[in-house]
Amino acid sequence: MPEAYRVAIMGATGAVGTELLELLEERNFPIKDLILLASPRSVGKELMFKGQSINVKAISDANFADIDLVLASAGGGISKEWAPRAAAAGAVVVDNSSAFRMDPSVPLVVPEVNPEAALSHTGIIANPNCTTILMSVALWPLHQCQPIRRIIVATYQSASGAGARAMEEVKQQAQAILQGKEPSTNAFPYPLAFNLFPHNSPLNEHGYCQEEMKMVNETRKIFGVSDLRVSATCVRVPVLRAHSEAINLEFSQPFEVDKALKLLQAAAGVKVVEDWQANYFPMPIEASGQDDVLVGRVRRDLSHECGLELWLSGDQIRKGAALNAVQIAELLISKQALKIKA
Amino acid sequence: MPEAYRVAIMGATGAVGTELLELLEERNFPIKDLILLASPRSVGKELMFKGQSINVKAISDANFADIDLVLASAGGGISKEWAPRAAAAGAVVVDNSSAFRMDPSVPLVVPEVNPEAALSHTGIIANPNCTTILMSVALWPLHQCQPIRRIIVATYQSASGAGARAMEEVKQQAQAILQGKEPSTNAFPYPLAFNLFPHNSPLNEHGYCQEEMKMVNETRKIFGVSDLRVSATCVRVPVLRAHSEAINLEFSQPFEVDKALKLLQAAAGVKVVEDWQANYFPMPIEASGQDDVLVGRVRRDLSHECGLELWLSGDQIRKGAALNAVQIAELLISKQALKIKA
Repeated sequence: MPEAYRVAIMGATGAVGTELLELLEERNFPIKDLILLASPRSVGKELMFKGQSINVKAISDANFADIDLVLASAGGGISKEWAPRAAAAGAVVVDNSSAFRMDPSVPLVVPEVNPEAALSHTGIIANPNCTTILMSVALWPLHQCQPIRRIIVATYQSASGAGARAMEEVKQQAQAILQGKEPSTNAFPYPLAFNLFPHNSPLNEHGYCQEEMKMVNETRKIFGVSDLRVSATCVRVPVLRAHSEAINLEFSQPFEVDKALKLLQAAAGVKVVEDWQANYFPMPIEASGQDDVLVGRVRRDLSHECGLELWLSGDQIRKGAALNAVQIAELLISKQALKIKA
Repeated sequence: MPEAYRVAIMGATGAVGTELLELLEERNFPIKDLILLASPRSVGKELMFKGQSINVKAISDANFADIDLVLASAGGGISKEWAPRAAAAGAVVVDNSSAFRMDPSVPLVVPEVNPEAALSHTGIIANPNCTTILMSVALWPLHQCQPIRRIIVATYQSASGAGARAMEEVKQQAQAILQGKEPSTNAFPYPLAFNLFPHNSPLNEHGYCQEEMKMVNETRKIFGVSDLRVSATCVRVPVLRAHSEAINLEFSQPFEVDKALKLLQAAAGVKVVEDWQANYFPMPIEASGQDDVLVGRVRRDLSHECGLELWLSGDQIRKGAALNAVQIAELLISKQALKIKA
């Protein structure tokens, strides 16, 4: 009988929280006690776990001294306030927000890429941004074989990246447009149904938005290459769930396509989806609900002798958020690095 | 009173044909006689032009000896058959299909880029592919200032690129999905509503699809740079109308963003749309129905000292097809190069 843990989900009622709950059940995570935490307006809600109803409690009512593991997905502000308290009380926090990702003392972990980093935590482990996780999983097997010199990526990000409310908004907008009405906007600044727009996070002085800089800076940290050359264009598209990415890679030497395909086929967390005859490649509707990142259209870059092009789709709520967090916790357990407090 | 021409629209009932009809009226193109041609199944349909109803005739019934200008948009097969006949009968054909684009004896023209090429025609002038036209218009002002060394582009192509029927299909699919039903597919191999997929044109032996190779080869021909390095990833997205493109450019020298913006602001056919504070940039819903290609997010490429990134949206039925064809005809007229036959 393996040891079992007292686990808290912080932000249990959100899109990622809901997925965390499902994954913990599906993967039979060793849980002794599951504590569901959320903001005051969700307190009292009941969520099901393994056939049992669990009451949602306020984060401020949590007793972190009695919790071994916190899976946090309640936004950066909440994490900034509560993750250090939980860590100080001896819990390990796997934090899905951007609050600690670039903190040099906090490991930023994709288990398929840099599992060893997770072991050097001091109470908080950061889960990378969704687009970064998906890209890292797909590129790491290639990077290990031959260091990547430059990445140019354009994203196709689904509504779910902005939460369950945004998914609902896109559906309502589509309904309105089909009925010849004006779509209303709330979660997003512009209508997304039958439209698209560059990612609406704030821009820095160089014109890159936060989402793009996450792809740049987080990939560098995860890969351990502080000067890795990355440029990203992040775009929201009217897809409900799962992100896609068109990725152009530059190496120092030519990278044979067959070799790249073999590496990807053998890589953990990657599923190669390619049928040239049928024009069948990764699509968000097929990536949705899958653990693996779907990768395809691997081809030599016509414009550069040492370039490769590839295309991916991945479920950004699952591998891009909740699953990666659970995998980090499982990794700690497998390395006997998750303690049950007395 | 300017001279007026006998003009035929070949493929008058399609998405581009409809737009051609509108543009000829809107721009008050000097027409003496308008002949609407289409496939047998559309014969007998009536279309309105300047308040008059015109009967659609079969292409095989056209008497090209009495036609000065043919605007052809009925597909490659039809153009291959009929454009040479019309040209042999002395008409000038502006052909919107891909049939003659790469023919060395046929000019491939974007009036803002290579107007002089139009004058060297021998009866047929090719209109480039939609994605190529939009990109060419936006990049030419920069290329003239400093030659572009390499282009990496990822497209976000709307349903209308596959015709009016495809637009209708996406709406029907969205309706089905909103009602919890399975979407049916017909124009496209996979559902496009709330989904996306790499462009479904046939792939060559290097894994690039036809649409991508059009961007490579046509841009080279239009720019007159036979070895211009271009790599494209073309993707269909659930947008009804107007294509968008994320473009990464490499130059030999650094290209100042301010300079690029000034050149774009002054360029014919381009409208710079940028408000960093409001995260307001080109969007397909705003590009739809506009003549100009909307360009924004012009920024220094973080990954390359001589790189620029930019983003565009353009109406691919209008500037990407019908408008460009009409502009080519207007260009011929302005150069006294469109003859009225005896």
